[in-house]
Amino acid sequence: MVGGGPGAFIGPVHRIAAELDGRIELVAGAFSQSAERSRAAGESYRIEPGRAYADYRTMLEAEKKRPDAIDFVSIVTPNHLHLPVAEAALGAGFPVMSDKPATATYAEAITLERAVRKSGLPYGLTHTYAGYALVREARALCAAGKLGKIRKFVVEYLQGWLSRPLEATTAGRKQAEWRTDPALNGPGGCIGDIGVHAFHLLEYVTGHEVTSLHAALRSVVEGRLVDDDCTVLVNVDNGASGVLMASQVAAGEGNGLRLRVYGEAGSLDWQQEDPNRLRIKWLDGPEEIRHAAGHYLGHDARAVARLPIGHPEGYLEAFAVLYREFADGLTAWQQEQPNPMPKTLPGITAGVRGMRFIDRAIESSHSKGWIDF
Amino acid sequence: MVGGGPGAFIGPVHRIAAELDGRIELVAGAFSQSAERSRAAGESYRIEPGRAYADYRTMLEAEKKRPDAIDFVSIVTPNHLHLPVAEAALGAGFPVMSDKPATATYAEAITLERAVRKSGLPYGLTHTYAGYALVREARALCAAGKLGKIRKFVVEYLQGWLSRPLEATTAGRKQAEWRTDPALNGPGGCIGDIGVHAFHLLEYVTGHEVTSLHAALRSVVEGRLVDDDCTVLVNVDNGASGVLMASQVAAGEGNGLRLRVYGEAGSLDWQQEDPNRLRIKWLDGPEEIRHAAGHYLGHDARAVARLPIGHPEGYLEAFAVLYREFADGLTAWQQEQPNPMPKTLPGITAGVRGMRFIDRAIESSHSKGWIDF
Amino acid sequence: MVGGGPGAFIGPVHRIAAELDGRIELVAGAFSQSAERSRAAGESYRIEPGRAYADYRTMLEAEKKRPDAIDFVSIVTPNHLHLPVAEAALGAGFPVMSDKPATATYAEAITLERAVRKSGLPYGLTHTYAGYALVREARALCAAGKLGKIRKFVVEYLQGWLSRPLEATTAGRKQAEWRTDPALNGPGGCIGDIGVHAFHLLEYVTGHEVTSLHAALRSVVEGRLVDDDCTVLVNVDNGASGVLMASQVAAGEGNGLRLRVYGEAGSLDWQQEDPNRLRIKWLDGPEEIRHAAGHYLGHDARAVARLPIGHPEGYLEAFAVLYREFADGLTAWQQEQPNPMPKTLPGITAGVRGMRFIDRAIESSHSKGWIDF
Amino acid sequence: MVGGGPGAFIGPVHRIAAELDGRIELVAGAFSQSAERSRAAGESYRIEPGRAYADYRTMLEAEKKRPDAIDFVSIVTPNHLHLPVAEAALGAGFPVMSDKPATATYAEAITLERAVRKSGLPYGLTHTYAGYALVREARALCAAGKLGKIRKFVVEYLQGWLSRPLEATTAGRKQAEWRTDPALNGPGGCIGDIGVHAFHLLEYVTGHEVTSLHAALRSVVEGRLVDDDCTVLVNVDNGASGVLMASQVAAGEGNGLRLRVYGEAGSLDWQQEDPNRLRIKWLDGPEEIRHAAGHYLGHDARAVARLPIGHPEGYLEAFAVLYREFADGLTAWQQEQPNPMPKTLPGITAGVRGMRFIDRAIESSHSKGWIDF
Repeated sequence: MVGGGPGAFIGPVHRIAAELDGRIELVAGAFSQSAERSRAAGESYRIEPGRAYADYRTMLEAEKKRPDAIDFVSIVTPNHLHLPVAEAALGAGFPVMSDKPATATYAEAITLERAVRKSGLPYGLTHTYAGYALVREARALCAAGKLGKIRKFVVEYLQGWLSRPLEATTAGRKQAEWRTDPALNGPGGCIGDIGVHAFHLLEYVTGHEVTSLHAALRSVVEGRLVDDDCTVLVNVDNGASGVLMASQVAAGEGNGLRLRVYGEAGSLDWQQEDPNRLRIKWLDGPEEIRHAAGHYLGHDARAVARLPIGHPEGYLEAFAVLYREFADGLTAWQQEQPNPMPKTLPGITAGVRGMRFIDRAIESSHSKGWIDF
Repeated sequence: MVGGGPGAFIGPVHRIAAELDGRIELVAGAFSQSAERSRAAGESYRIEPGRAYADYRTMLEAEKKRPDAIDFVSIVTPNHLHLPVAEAALGAGFPVMSDKPATATYAEAITLERAVRKSGLPYGLTHTYAGYALVREARALCAAGKLGKIRKFVVEYLQGWLSRPLEATTAGRKQAEWRTDPALNGPGGCIGDIGVHAFHLLEYVTGHEVTSLHAALRSVVEGRLVDDDCTVLVNVDNGASGVLMASQVAAGEGNGLRLRVYGEAGSLDWQQEDPNRLRIKWLDGPEEIRHAAGHYLGHDARAVARLPIGHPEGYLEAFAVLYREFADGLTAWQQEQPNPMPKTLPGITAGVRGMRFIDRAIESSHSKGWIDF
Repeated sequence: MVGGGPGAFIGPVHRIAAELDGRIELVAGAFSQSAERSRAAGESYRIEPGRAYADYRTMLEAEKKRPDAIDFVSIVTPNHLHLPVAEAALGAGFPVMSDKPATATYAEAITLERAVRKSGLPYGLTHTYAGYALVREARALCAAGKLGKIRKFVVEYLQGWLSRPLEATTAGRKQAEWRTDPALNGPGGCIGDIGVHAFHLLEYVTGHEVTSLHAALRSVVEGRLVDDDCTVLVNVDNGASGVLMASQVAAGEGNGLRLRVYGEAGSLDWQQEDPNRLRIKWLDGPEEIRHAAGHYLGHDARAVARLPIGHPEGYLEAFAVLYREFADGLTAWQQEQPNPMPKTLPGITAGVRGMRFIDRAIESSHSKGWIDF
Repeated sequence: MVGGGPGAFIGPVHRIAAELDGRIELVAGAFSQSAERSRAAGESYRIEPGRAYADYRTMLEAEKKRPDAIDFVSIVTPNHLHLPVAEAALGAGFPVMSDKPATATYAEAITLERAVRKSGLPYGLTHTYAGYALVREARALCAAGKLGKIRKFVVEYLQGWLSRPLEATTAGRKQAEWRTDPALNGPGGCIGDIGVHAFHLLEYVTGHEVTSLHAALRSVVEGRLVDDDCTVLVNVDNGASGVLMASQVAAGEGNGLRLRVYGEAGSLDWQQEDPNRLRIKWLDGPEEIRHAAGHYLGHDARAVARLPIGHPEGYLEAFAVLYREFADGLTAWQQEQPNPMPKTLPGITAGVRGMRFIDRAIESSHSKGWIDF
């Protein structure tokens, strides 16, 4: 693991998620850019002292030589390091599981895509929400045409935690600071941090690709260097259109990710804060609620259930699904199976599309006009 | 009452709402453009046979001469008749309570505004949702600055009943037909039928006025002559912005009107399908749900409660609040009090703004660009 | 109308409900035991001054002689007057629509039943909740066996408004006072005021009759003369059993009436505070939500809808359904049709069963044992 | 770990929960009564082949001798083995973490309590629901008297999965079979499997102890040897009373555990299927919803949050809290601190009370009368 040192939010999440199903074990890491903090983090993760490295290059060098080397590298750093770490890992022959977004800029994403293709190594991207059972069910419903032709969608991701200029204060600084610094985060603030999740969820569930958009990005909190509130009009490849909203100044919201998809025959509604229910409203019949782990769910949804119906699974479990699928893919790849990575696991293509979305949204917001994707 | 004959939806609603609080009684009407159907409707409303007139001009003439003449005229016709009926009524000296939108076109609204001003007579507009107790509470919260400066809003009005080309079928034709015919309805379809409700609710609750917008209007159902799905980016006078959605092809939705307003300190969320609860999410504290008729509510909300907490009031009761306020205003006006109409009751200014919104939204959608309001 | 003078809650509700559908008009009443207050109430209801009588006997005498006499009598007094007023009205040849419970005591209910039978006149009882569209749907589902054999039920009616000794204070005294005085209310407090609603709803929806029970009734607030919290174990005629809860000291609750019925194939769940949704959870499929006015509903539910789907109807509308059905029955009876009263409208049999329930529950609570119904 | 072999539900849950926070690692086990299946399970858990033992006695003997012996024993077998395994483990000097209920019968629980006391070793009981952050918040609210004196409660645990005689079929047999066999499960069916969870939650949150009860237990499914539906009237030590419901034939329910507590000043409501929200309804103010991980929560609730607000944690995370606290207690005990076990972690006293509840409930149901606890 690269990143995830003291004060990190997403590092421990990756650790727990990776290990949840007993398929993966964290054994080495370069957890911080300070050698001492990396060692401390390693201790907290109970890994062998010698394998808490001072930096990722050292780690890759050292691990390459071990008979019991790591099987892959998890990247959980701020965005600006995603590309160099991924390139180095792939260069050293290690598959990569990366936090999103794939890189800090669209140009970097193109570079990374080339590196991944060239290496032939597995590459996975933790678009967490793809791991929820009922997101899989929603995706399967769309793919099977149960809603009829899709006409309209609303995807929103509303948080409130940056309602104040946290980056200028001491408390909570760590999380806010790099996310609001274009040099560490990339040019997109909210659009890159969470807008890209909403974008991925939209394409992942509907199976349609964005073809054009019109974005309005704002920095609501005074002095903030990146956008913190985004509204994007979006058209997709079958003629449907809708809106994507992302905000980090929606005071009072926690992690309000929600997707609604409207087809000719009915609509679906999934909310991350209530992830174990999928609402389907039919044009010609009563509303329906599918529950996670229901035996009536489709194959993809049932495949990721760990618990019986009524036992809520949450964020960590969804995250763990992606690691489980990465482990599956890794095993298949080690056995030289063709197309080893599960199609339900986001990879480099999703990564590039996400970066393109950020890029295009920023451009449209500047030009105040519609723009092709 | 003008309009509201057999097959009408909104006519009986006006009758019930007007009479609900025992302040108003329906005593005369020109319910249909057919004399026979008008008579039949009159019978169903149990009014005196002689007062079910064949047309509104006859009604106005006849009533003017009666010592027990009607006190005001309710207009519940399709939109293209709103202006001529209102002008005739005002011309005959009768105050007017009109269904929304004020007229069929923006130009007509200007004409009507002039007529209202000139007549000096009371004029009310049934923007129903303004009648809900908790919409009043939300408005009072914003006015009192409880949410801090308002930064963002999302207002949506999603219906599914026009998902099919109903206007081309026999069943349900009456309602769909005129609404999708520009000659009867005006140039805006969905934007005029329900978008204008969303627009009014937004300005009514936040107290802010729209200053510019960018609209994307579509006709999703093939062959439809007016828009049936609308997404509008909106800026208001304090710098806040957000999105307004209206759709009549959101399959599975009933009458999904919802307003969310985000301020610096917290946000509010009101949904018409669950109108007896107002959700407030504070940045610094737990979420709060205010219930209709709670003794802790502000003056405006308590003023419109008819029942104790826990006894849900719905659409008819909200509608009746507007009629009750119109009756209050009428009495005050008859007593020659200054500014007789309650400020909480939408009037001609709201009517003109609504028509301007429709006009501007259509223009922006054609030009595919931002436009000043 | 008898009762419903100044300060009354249920009087105005009866007036609005009766008039809502334009079938009934309030034209006379003895609204208070004080002649002056009765006259004042009459004025507020806008009835002819001469028909606001000083007492019900005078009213009955006077109305009997008028050519335009009242068609029936509505009884909305405290419970101890239900019997004498009903007897007098029936004796004078007037049909009766009575607020619940039928009488103050079970013995009185037997007496009243005899009087109703003897008179041959229509008698209706406003068990409000029977008027909700989705209660009708639930009843139809049970009758049609859609849930399979019914095995279990939970019916609860939880209010909090008597959490304090309101009857000993000045504010809110009127409502609390007579309800907590055995002489005016009958021996059952909470069990009679709302427990009987829960009991009626249970039998009305399931179609099963209670055969035995074990009750635990308490007076939680010190000094209260009647019960304010009740839990009753209940068995019904098909072997199913469950629990009935009623409380007026459930602090924080408004009007929490809820019925859950469990059959072999699934269960239903209806809540009065969210009355436009009926939840059905199937053993072998997804949860289902039926919405009021859905075109997929059964006949009985569709018959009572006034508005399209998504336009919530509430307490007043449900109440009005009962008056509409009473008006239907009255018309049929005037036309000498056989069995004129609609079966969906509660009548004297329901009234007697309700009083028996109160009686048996109190007895069981005293004996601390099971008791046959 | 003892138990948790192929087909088990709760074994893998214990494994994941124990390891979730990186404090505990599964290293040895006797997973099945068949040596071969135990070995297979060991492999699936990726433990050293030599440490997947054929039976628990062998395991205890072998581990005792290892320098890197296990630190404690997890018991996840059917109920009838809880006592012998726990006694053997304690006898061998190993602390115990046991699935609930503590034993199969009340008499056994007394025996076990004596063994625990005598050994002086840590003993924990996985009453899962005690691990939820908002259950901790609810408990703290009651302890601090925020609701005022507690007057009433309703605790329900409704499942539907035994609506059919699963124990007599092949599919799903493993889970249903032992639970419905008194020899393996103990005399209480539903009352022992889930009623005891509801009982524990009630005492855990309110801080009050049950003093008397009246139970009605039924076997609804024909041929079932144990109860599958239970309703229990309950009184507690401060004079409050209420009802406890547990059912496994509530068709359509998943895992419907819910606790409502009513005090003088307000009430709380927590539902396991929506575990990240705690509803508080105040007598004198708006309803309040506290969200897991809210910074406004009390110490105990914040102590168990792993993720920011809005990122739902579920069943596994709650389970893991108990293991984390057991690990904390173990460490404290190894360091010979006084009272090493956290008070929030259920232990042998809770285990004995739970068994007594089952015992008393069955007795009351037979005698059809009230019984002292």
